Amino acid sequence: MTPTDDPRGHVTPALTDGLLRALLDSLGRSGVLTEPDDVAPYLTDWTGTHHGRVGAVLRPRDTAQVSDAVRLCAEAGVAMVPQGGNTGLCGGATPDASGRQVVLSLGRLRRIREVDPAADTMTVEAGVPLATAREAAAAAGRLFPLSMGSEGSCTIGGNIATNAGGTAVLRYGMMRELVLGLEVVLPDGRVWDGLRAVRKDNTGYDVKQLFIGAEGTLGVVTAAVLRLFPQTPCRATAWLAPRDVDAAVAILSVLRERAAERLTAYELVSRQALDMVLAHVPGTRDPFRENHPWYALVELGGPAAAEDLDTVLEASLGEAFERDLLVDAAVATGTAQREALWLMREGVSEAQRSEGPSIKHDVTLPIGDLAAFVADVGTRLRALLPGIRLVTYGHVGDGNLHYNLSGPVDDPSALLVLRDELTAVVYERVAQRGGSISAEHGLGTTKRDAAAALKGEVELDVARAVKGALDPTGLMNPGKVLLT
Amino acid sequence: MTPTDDPRGHVTPALTDGLLRALLDSLGRSGVLTEPDDVAPYLTDWTGTHHGRVGAVLRPRDTAQVSDAVRLCAEAGVAMVPQGGNTGLCGGATPDASGRQVVLSLGRLRRIREVDPAADTMTVEAGVPLATAREAAAAAGRLFPLSMGSEGSCTIGGNIATNAGGTAVLRYGMMRELVLGLEVVLPDGRVWDGLRAVRKDNTGYDVKQLFIGAEGTLGVVTAAVLRLFPQTPCRATAWLAPRDVDAAVAILSVLRERAAERLTAYELVSRQALDMVLAHVPGTRDPFRENHPWYALVELGGPAAAEDLDTVLEASLGEAFERDLLVDAAVATGTAQREALWLMREGVSEAQRSEGPSIKHDVTLPIGDLAAFVADVGTRLRALLPGIRLVTYGHVGDGNLHYNLSGPVDDPSALLVLRDELTAVVYERVAQRGGSISAEHGLGTTKRDAAAALKGEVELDVARAVKGALDPTGLMNPGKVLLT
Repeated sequence: MTPTDDPRGHVTPALTDGLLRALLDSLGRSGVLTEPDDVAPYLTDWTGTHHGRVGAVLRPRDTAQVSDAVRLCAEAGVAMVPQGGNTGLCGGATPDASGRQVVLSLGRLRRIREVDPAADTMTVEAGVPLATAREAAAAAGRLFPLSMGSEGSCTIGGNIATNAGGTAVLRYGMMRELVLGLEVVLPDGRVWDGLRAVRKDNTGYDVKQLFIGAEGTLGVVTAAVLRLFPQTPCRATAWLAPRDVDAAVAILSVLRERAAERLTAYELVSRQALDMVLAHVPGTRDPFRENHPWYALVELGGPAAAEDLDTVLEASLGEAFERDLLVDAAVATGTAQREALWLMREGVSEAQRSEGPSIKHDVTLPIGDLAAFVADVGTRLRALLPGIRLVTYGHVGDGNLHYNLSGPVDDPSALLVLRDELTAVVYERVAQRGGSISAEHGLGTTKRDAAAALKGEVELDVARAVKGALDPTGLMNPGKVLLT
Repeated sequence: MTPTDDPRGHVTPALTDGLLRALLDSLGRSGVLTEPDDVAPYLTDWTGTHHGRVGAVLRPRDTAQVSDAVRLCAEAGVAMVPQGGNTGLCGGATPDASGRQVVLSLGRLRRIREVDPAADTMTVEAGVPLATAREAAAAAGRLFPLSMGSEGSCTIGGNIATNAGGTAVLRYGMMRELVLGLEVVLPDGRVWDGLRAVRKDNTGYDVKQLFIGAEGTLGVVTAAVLRLFPQTPCRATAWLAPRDVDAAVAILSVLRERAAERLTAYELVSRQALDMVLAHVPGTRDPFRENHPWYALVELGGPAAAEDLDTVLEASLGEAFERDLLVDAAVATGTAQREALWLMREGVSEAQRSEGPSIKHDVTLPIGDLAAFVADVGTRLRALLPGIRLVTYGHVGDGNLHYNLSGPVDDPSALLVLRDELTAVVYERVAQRGGSISAEHGLGTTKRDAAAALKGEVELDVARAVKGALDPTGLMNPGKVLLT
């Protein structure tokens, strides 16, 4: 290896001729990118804030080629950065600035190997986009429930590496709960075929759990067996004005009690967030005459066969009114109204972008602590920056808030000056209440040190022991998730 | 340490006086058992087939005492065998014959630390019996869904260590899916406080997954945060005669499509198994006039609020009749009938005991392979031992068969002579079809080597690397799950 540093900032070959030749022999011309224009899309992340350099971008076509690529790089001592759809939010798939790493793109492993609707399983390769996997399940009359804004670009491999969440976690769980089996290339290039398709398997350590959520630091996921579910064509959807956050949580209990697993989504939106949506997202309209401090979007889902989800929803809301938890409610009477209600929730992120710079937090709280957290942290942030706008919303059914901040209307950029102080307040309060500072986005490099500071030494030691055991040379996505 | 060997077979002190004194100082007299009568209940497992000897049985009262005990034993180089309710079926909690190990009983860690019905969580200590945990949840109006025959004796810690299954896995998952957080004493005595109560936490490796299903070989679980669910007081239950096993699987699809998550149980019973139940279990009666080769028990469950589960069940069965999948069906019209149907399923194990010796297998198959597996393996076993009785039943909704064998009526003991050959046929066919030879019982020592023979070297290497990283001295339940 002869790493070089190019003062012009271009990509320079940091790999030996011997390694490059061996990689070309295995992966072919289309599998080894070294030209600046070719590698550029792999060097900057989706948020535009993380940039790196590489010796090459490797694009294997199948598991055997991934195995070859990893083995050759490992033998040469070259660090590898696995990359899926490159839509991560924490820099976990971006190479460092040295130019001595390679990006290992899984984007060409795009085969859907099998869909088995009777067994409710699907075997797909790492580079299959989430939307494509969902469509393949739907074509077989099944539901693959993972869903999120980036689903057209993000890939199954990335979803597994980051244990992705999204809008249906309340009912179906995180990606970890949707994986039955994995195929993984280990840091030395050996392939572990763990593509089991059974739900019950108690034959020793559940090795697949190691690789889910490890952000490519323990090996490279090349394929997975995923769980499928019945489709839920029937929906019942409502927009609520709960009395306050505590009441929103109590209404969630009422809904769970009456609808059980049919409760598919329960999302919170603050008035501040709704104001931005109404101002910036065309076609949105407040369904209530009066303003309220908080709103919740509820959706039940069920199979096509005889059901009356509307009855269950209305009975739940009736109880919530009687118990004085609910101030107002609007139930969607058709698809157009349902989509209009969802737009008020899904438009928040775009609307906030129109209001200037923002600071985003993705936190989980024990659900009973949500009200106190919101009140306490809000007070402290307003003291730090008077006029700060708290664009609070998220998957409240899971205790997950996207606790985002915008600056004062008359000086939106004031926010960024105080970034560290504001985030410190949020993280400190999350930690005090036993929550998580990354509910569904992972750590990458962005949150790595903040997470480490909040974890005890014991847990960090266990994590480092696992990393050392599986990747003793430390060449798999070094510096991501944890410092070793 | 001065291990001695007592030719009379009694327990002899294998621990140094210094270690015993230190343990007594920390745990008190009631926490250190050395008298033969006192230790005897801890030395033989529930099946009566595994026996061991010990230097002492340690009975810590709380997590701090567990930590002390582990640290002292680790420093003295004494191996520890964690034990819960001692109801395991694979010898995972039985000490070896050397007399140099200690049993570390978690039975006195019996506190229910918290039940939070609003958050749907419960924090319990390892020694709490499963039935007690279920009752505490019910007293708060919630459901803890794990349920099995041994629930009065088995403990939450053991359920976690073996990733227990049971009768509600189809709807709620295995124990792994019910655990939100853990408190664990590591092999060096340090305490990891991972008692998180949130569902979404993507801040690095999910360390708790290591200890679930590890049978105490990586550390000692002392407490856990568990998920709770709404209760399901409404039930709809039926006993079915599907045309064959393939039809039983197709009916499962119909039920899942129409009932979605409300499908709580779907159990298969062969005619051979039912014959034994009808012969030996008082109060059982075949609801059908004609005999059928296979039966299925289906149950839907839902909240108390307005529902019509019977309608959903009857519509599902109607579709199954129309598609010629179903030959006959009996729907329970009240609690007594429901219990009578369940007795035909739950009575199989007891009925089989009345028919002489048996060989039990706990296997999972991909659900589409069930029919072919049953036909193929049945043919081969009958060729090996004409007259063999195939007492096949189990949690078919999960692909999990209790594929049990009884000998010929006129010579039941002939079975045991062929034990190894018969089991080899079953395991070989399970492995060929990508199934599991231990669906919910774990490995312990009984299935350790069979499982190793079926796994590839790559997976075993990963497992050994994890064991070596977390328990470098190998003192935590040595010889269980895997040989290092």
